[in-house]
Amino acid sequence: MTAFNFTIIKKSTECLGRAGILETRRGKIHTPIFMPVGTQGTVKTLTQEELKTSGAEIILGNTYHLMLRPGTEVLEHFGGLHRFINWDRPILTDSGGFQVFSLAKLNRIDDDGVDFNSHIDGKHIRLTPEDSIAIQNSIGSDIMMVFDECSPYPISEKGAREALERTVKWAKRCREAHKPMEKGQALFGIIQGSTYLPMRLESLERTAEIGFEGLAIGGLSVGEPKELMLEILDGLMPHMPENMPRYLMGVGTPEDLFYGIERGIDMFDCVHPTRIARHGSAFTPEGRINLLNAQWMKSDLPIDETCDCYACQKHSRGYIRHLFKAKEILGQRLTSLHNTHFMLKLVRDIREALLDGTFMDLKKTFFSKYFQNK
Amino acid sequence: MTAFNFTIIKKSTECLGRAGILETRRGKIHTPIFMPVGTQGTVKTLTQEELKTSGAEIILGNTYHLMLRPGTEVLEHFGGLHRFINWDRPILTDSGGFQVFSLAKLNRIDDDGVDFNSHIDGKHIRLTPEDSIAIQNSIGSDIMMVFDECSPYPISEKGAREALERTVKWAKRCREAHKPMEKGQALFGIIQGSTYLPMRLESLERTAEIGFEGLAIGGLSVGEPKELMLEILDGLMPHMPENMPRYLMGVGTPEDLFYGIERGIDMFDCVHPTRIARHGSAFTPEGRINLLNAQWMKSDLPIDETCDCYACQKHSRGYIRHLFKAKEILGQRLTSLHNTHFMLKLVRDIREALLDGTFMDLKKTFFSKYFQNK
Repeated sequence: MTAFNFTIIKKSTECLGRAGILETRRGKIHTPIFMPVGTQGTVKTLTQEELKTSGAEIILGNTYHLMLRPGTEVLEHFGGLHRFINWDRPILTDSGGFQVFSLAKLNRIDDDGVDFNSHIDGKHIRLTPEDSIAIQNSIGSDIMMVFDECSPYPISEKGAREALERTVKWAKRCREAHKPMEKGQALFGIIQGSTYLPMRLESLERTAEIGFEGLAIGGLSVGEPKELMLEILDGLMPHMPENMPRYLMGVGTPEDLFYGIERGIDMFDCVHPTRIARHGSAFTPEGRINLLNAQWMKSDLPIDETCDCYACQKHSRGYIRHLFKAKEILGQRLTSLHNTHFMLKLVRDIREALLDGTFMDLKKTFFSKYFQNK
Repeated sequence: MTAFNFTIIKKSTECLGRAGILETRRGKIHTPIFMPVGTQGTVKTLTQEELKTSGAEIILGNTYHLMLRPGTEVLEHFGGLHRFINWDRPILTDSGGFQVFSLAKLNRIDDDGVDFNSHIDGKHIRLTPEDSIAIQNSIGSDIMMVFDECSPYPISEKGAREALERTVKWAKRCREAHKPMEKGQALFGIIQGSTYLPMRLESLERTAEIGFEGLAIGGLSVGEPKELMLEILDGLMPHMPENMPRYLMGVGTPEDLFYGIERGIDMFDCVHPTRIARHGSAFTPEGRINLLNAQWMKSDLPIDETCDCYACQKHSRGYIRHLFKAKEILGQRLTSLHNTHFMLKLVRDIREALLDGTFMDLKKTFFSKYFQNK
């Protein structure tokens, strides 16, 4: 089968962080990595070329969205998502579970699967772990995720327990339906258990036992206080298998990269950078700025003077503010490009710092500037 | 003062078409030319770099929109529109007249100027010919237009006569307020007279008399049948001064380029290519196609196999259709890029044909394919 190999190049002596290389059939990923989210086969507002220029080594696709539109028939006609969207680097797909529970009109959940109505046209759809795997096979992603039940926050211990049990059962069925590296695709398990550490540890143990190519942590950053998320990571991460990629799902912000990496996370994804960008909010080394703010009306400064993205090389905050005020798409484009670039550059800088043994210095320097106005 | 020079390189022996070079302080424009419209300081969805890659030699800005947003104070802070939007090639601005009459809530028009309410916030604004010139000075466009009254279609002879008289009076005041090539900016007069040929000829004579660096034809393509527009051009164009650029305002489509150029037009502008693009309609050598059509669901074809734009080099109709169905901005981007590229390539091809003496051949070949399905 095609190679899927995770090598840790350097372990930090300052924290649990590590720099590694994840080899996939579609090329190498330097970890820790941030994965831009291309929900519907496009990272919103950006071209695939712009993503490459910003250094994106892997992007995400959402199984739930892609199964509804364009649908597996179209994806199969094109020979998978890569050819459909013309992206030759790795793609990771989620299982559809998260959106079924958060976006669709959920009708029924039983131990076998879920019944829901499409958020687009109301159509009734049944989705089982085996269906999710089959769809991810059609998509042809390089890293697939097991179909899980993601608990909302807050949830009772009883509710979290039910979701955990179901997730473990479904994980087994996903593994059964997709043997290790079948068709060259890796499959990651997902740890649930909400904010109950004992359940998290149990979920880790039972999921790891099944045998996956990587392990993800789901059900965090779903509304709980940041301190609680970090507490769970603090309790969980030291018990994670060492030589396996660890993926913190749906996280996060620039500061979250530091929080996660120092606790041993290798992979992140989040819509946050592009979502806030479309509303005029941009990352800078001095913290987030709102480009719609009147203070930028006559600003000749780029969003970020230290940034070499197209937006910062070519345009002022004053111009980009005008574009947002005038509801022009170019404003969303330039800010999405910058925020994506910012995250990818930051995660590369952090990786360098891990290799150089200067992670804590970088964190201190970054935080002192990024939070100077807090 | 800075050079503004129009040289006719070649006159067609087949028709009234001509190929020329228009020299401005910001570089040469090869005529005939199509000018993409950057209403609010951006050609919708595109970057300035993409416009350059597509060969745009000049773009338009709309005085009415720019005076409301970002406003002259901001434009002056940045030293004009070029620096504000980071575009170093020529810019032409309209006078604001067209939008005042079509978009704003018009309160009063008298011989001195117009009173209207902003379509954005309802604010009351008074605009005179002198104001329009002052705003275009702040914008710093390379080619300015006189403040005119554009008659809607249809209009009575009396109504057209009033608009004509006012336009001539205002043209004189604009010329008075802006001497030839003052601050390096050219000023074009505008011929009105609706669909009444005698009035058009009178308007031409009286406008030409005032003395402008170029002459434009306004008030066409405002709803009248295409045949009527061509009839007016047929009657008017042979009387236009020879050695002056001739600009047909707000026109048009791919076929309009042929119709106008063979009658002696040198410059065109229109929002049509980018507006239809944002609704999924794309130009091809075989006519317009609607990318939302189900027939493209599994199409591996690019929009246009003969096109070398990024959209056609990288993506299929199937993918772009999906982007439109999923309401993803990238669909609007790719189609806007292609349609702009298509118009600019077509006008370059027509110029080559004028130089080679093969204009009629090109027209025949283009029309036989473009209208094959009509």
